[in-house]
Amino acid sequence: SETKKLLILPGDGIGPEIMREVARIMAWMSRARGINFDITEDLVGGASLAVHGVPIRQEVIDEARAADAVLFGSVGDPKWASAGFDRRPEIAILKLRQELGLFANLRPAKVFDALADASTLKPEVVRGLDIMIVRETVGGIYFGNPRGIETLPDGSRRGINTEVYTTPEIERVARVAFDLARKRDNRVCSVEKCNVMESGLLWKEVVTDLHAREYADVELTHMLADNCAMQLVRNPRQFDVIVTGNLFGDLLSDLASMLTGSLGMLPSATLGAVDANGKRPALYEPIHGSAPDIAGKGQANPLAQILSFAMLLRYSFNMLEDAAMIETAVANVLASGLRTPDIMSPGMAVVGTEVMGEAVVREL
Amino acid sequence: SETKKLLILPGDGIGPEIMREVARIMAWMSRARGINFDITEDLVGGASLAVHGVPIRQEVIDEARAADAVLFGSVGDPKWASAGFDRRPEIAILKLRQELGLFANLRPAKVFDALADASTLKPEVVRGLDIMIVRETVGGIYFGNPRGIETLPDGSRRGINTEVYTTPEIERVARVAFDLARKRDNRVCSVEKCNVMESGLLWKEVVTDLHAREYADVELTHMLADNCAMQLVRNPRQFDVIVTGNLFGDLLSDLASMLTGSLGMLPSATLGAVDANGKRPALYEPIHGSAPDIAGKGQANPLAQILSFAMLLRYSFNMLEDAAMIETAVANVLASGLRTPDIMSPGMAVVGTEVMGEAVVREL
Ligand SMILES: CC(C)[C@H](C(=O)O)[C@@H](O)C(=O)O
Ligand SMILES: CC(C)[C@H](C(=O)O)[C@@H](O)C(=O)O
Repeated sequence: SETKKLLILPGDGIGPEIMREVARIMAWMSRARGINFDITEDLVGGASLAVHGVPIRQEVIDEARAADAVLFGSVGDPKWASAGFDRRPEIAILKLRQELGLFANLRPAKVFDALADASTLKPEVVRGLDIMIVRETVGGIYFGNPRGIETLPDGSRRGINTEVYTTPEIERVARVAFDLARKRDNRVCSVEKCNVMESGLLWKEVVTDLHAREYADVELTHMLADNCAMQLVRNPRQFDVIVTGNLFGDLLSDLASMLTGSLGMLPSATLGAVDANGKRPALYEPIHGSAPDIAGKGQANPLAQILSFAMLLRYSFNMLEDAAMIETAVANVLASGLRTPDIMSPGMAVVGTEVMGEAVVREL
Repeated sequence: SETKKLLILPGDGIGPEIMREVARIMAWMSRARGINFDITEDLVGGASLAVHGVPIRQEVIDEARAADAVLFGSVGDPKWASAGFDRRPEIAILKLRQELGLFANLRPAKVFDALADASTLKPEVVRGLDIMIVRETVGGIYFGNPRGIETLPDGSRRGINTEVYTTPEIERVARVAFDLARKRDNRVCSVEKCNVMESGLLWKEVVTDLHAREYADVELTHMLADNCAMQLVRNPRQFDVIVTGNLFGDLLSDLASMLTGSLGMLPSATLGAVDANGKRPALYEPIHGSAPDIAGKGQANPLAQILSFAMLLRYSFNMLEDAAMIETAVANVLASGLRTPDIMSPGMAVVGTEVMGEAVVREL
């Protein structure tokens, strides 16, 4: 079989220790299934700042381009909190998104049966929850120009950012949402603030037109972003796929994740456009942060990182069977009562990062 | 006593019928306490579009300027959904905010003891919740230029909006938040996306500086907007006062409201700057919408509108005793078991708009 080139970027905080548990799964895949990966590993975020003085080097971007998929840990390190806007560890992920054209962030918010009580929402509101948020990630206010802080003649200052969306940018991310919906419950809710923002008005029009032209079989609704924030709390199960811009997606996907009560369980994928050789750039990462407070203590939950790897197998290598095997193994380990501290509940057995990783391999 | 000039703008949907219940309270104030208001009433939103062809007339803005306070119902009418961006009913409220300089929107999210079970969150997570969100309302991406939709040479389109904040805009709304905190639990959390947006970076710096100069006695923390959306779900009681920009405030205040499970109960105030004559422009409105689906059916909950009137008495006329009397009457009516359909729960007595309004007057 052809080589599968992976770039592994553990990053900061708990990133390296949870990534080691993925290595354990890969070792099992090699042993038991004869599947091997061609792996490059490198530094990003605070870890890269410490060694190279920048949050991400051009070499790493090039490695990411050369790879079939990137498995990312997490970035963010309090040591670099005052490093200045141009040296934020976050630049690592922003640059990877932009340089590789990773425009569609897939953020599943799924409640595991074994963990339905972990939510702060009533179990009857969230049980069985399964939402997919598709967030645009290379446009909008994150990257628009002009941007910056200027000093006015009177000495006061002015901060500016620009939200920009074009027809093709909206269409390509909406396509990802419609395509996903067809494999799910066939419903897309498009979210913007068209009652206040022209960029939102264009968003709504473009999604509506595309739907009429190519996806009339999918149910399409529209919702204002403030109402969506409310509806996610009031009745989250009303949603199947949500598609929205970069900034609204940032807030709404985090909000949706928190409804599950178990951030340590949630993976994500960020996909680019298929190129002339049929290759699609893709990055996979857990949705939780670098959790500097528990880094190095062996307590971090490795399951979101492991499930991100399962997503990678599914979306980048079409290894549906292996992906499903890993997901089932994770569900079984939870059902057996093992819990890292972040998802601990009475009557369960608390374990650390390594024991959890080993348990998943044993299930496999 | 001097005359108290009120402009009443019932607006669309349930606006007029819930405003009638406030009139009932005013009649009682006149009878029982000898307090009279000099009242002007006018049309806004869809109601104004239908008669005048615009969502708000210049005369209404002038009336609002002349008044000591504006009591607003709600705007939004499906009949005008396709009226076009320049004739949205929402323009009524946006213009009032901008023309009167109503820059600080005060959005309490409070759980009434009698209604703690109404939330989709577990009662132990929200019981006693009492957050005040201070949202900037005349700046940010709502009003920044350039804005609009342009057609590019290749026929595709481009939607643009601009987020702008200046030092004085940030300072004046932060002052409102710090001043409020001093009368509450003395804690302010300032929310932005300084890791991605320069306007957020400036926001954070200006709030930090102002705090050091004038409000060092108040506890100040900072939080990213995506994390704030999460934390409001995870543990909302960690917050006292939250201060944030226009767009984040729109989502986060609606999210916070929904945590209470009873939107029909929540008032809001939007305040401007004190002028040379000591007058401060102010608008009070329930946070719920125009609810066209139940409009005219006599089922709407009038309590948020009544509590908005209580806020008006407190903030615009310093009538603390009367405001507290109305708030206590509302709490007592709930304790007695009366419920409009939106807050109905087993064992309670369901009543309509008028019976609820009458019950509040009886309590008074
Ligand atoms: C790391 C940061 C730039 C980022 C964002 O705001 O997009 C994060 O919150 C995310 O959602 O991946
Ligand atoms: C009516 C509309 C313009 C408005 C907004 O987005 O500000 C509404 O959602 C609000 O919060 O008052």
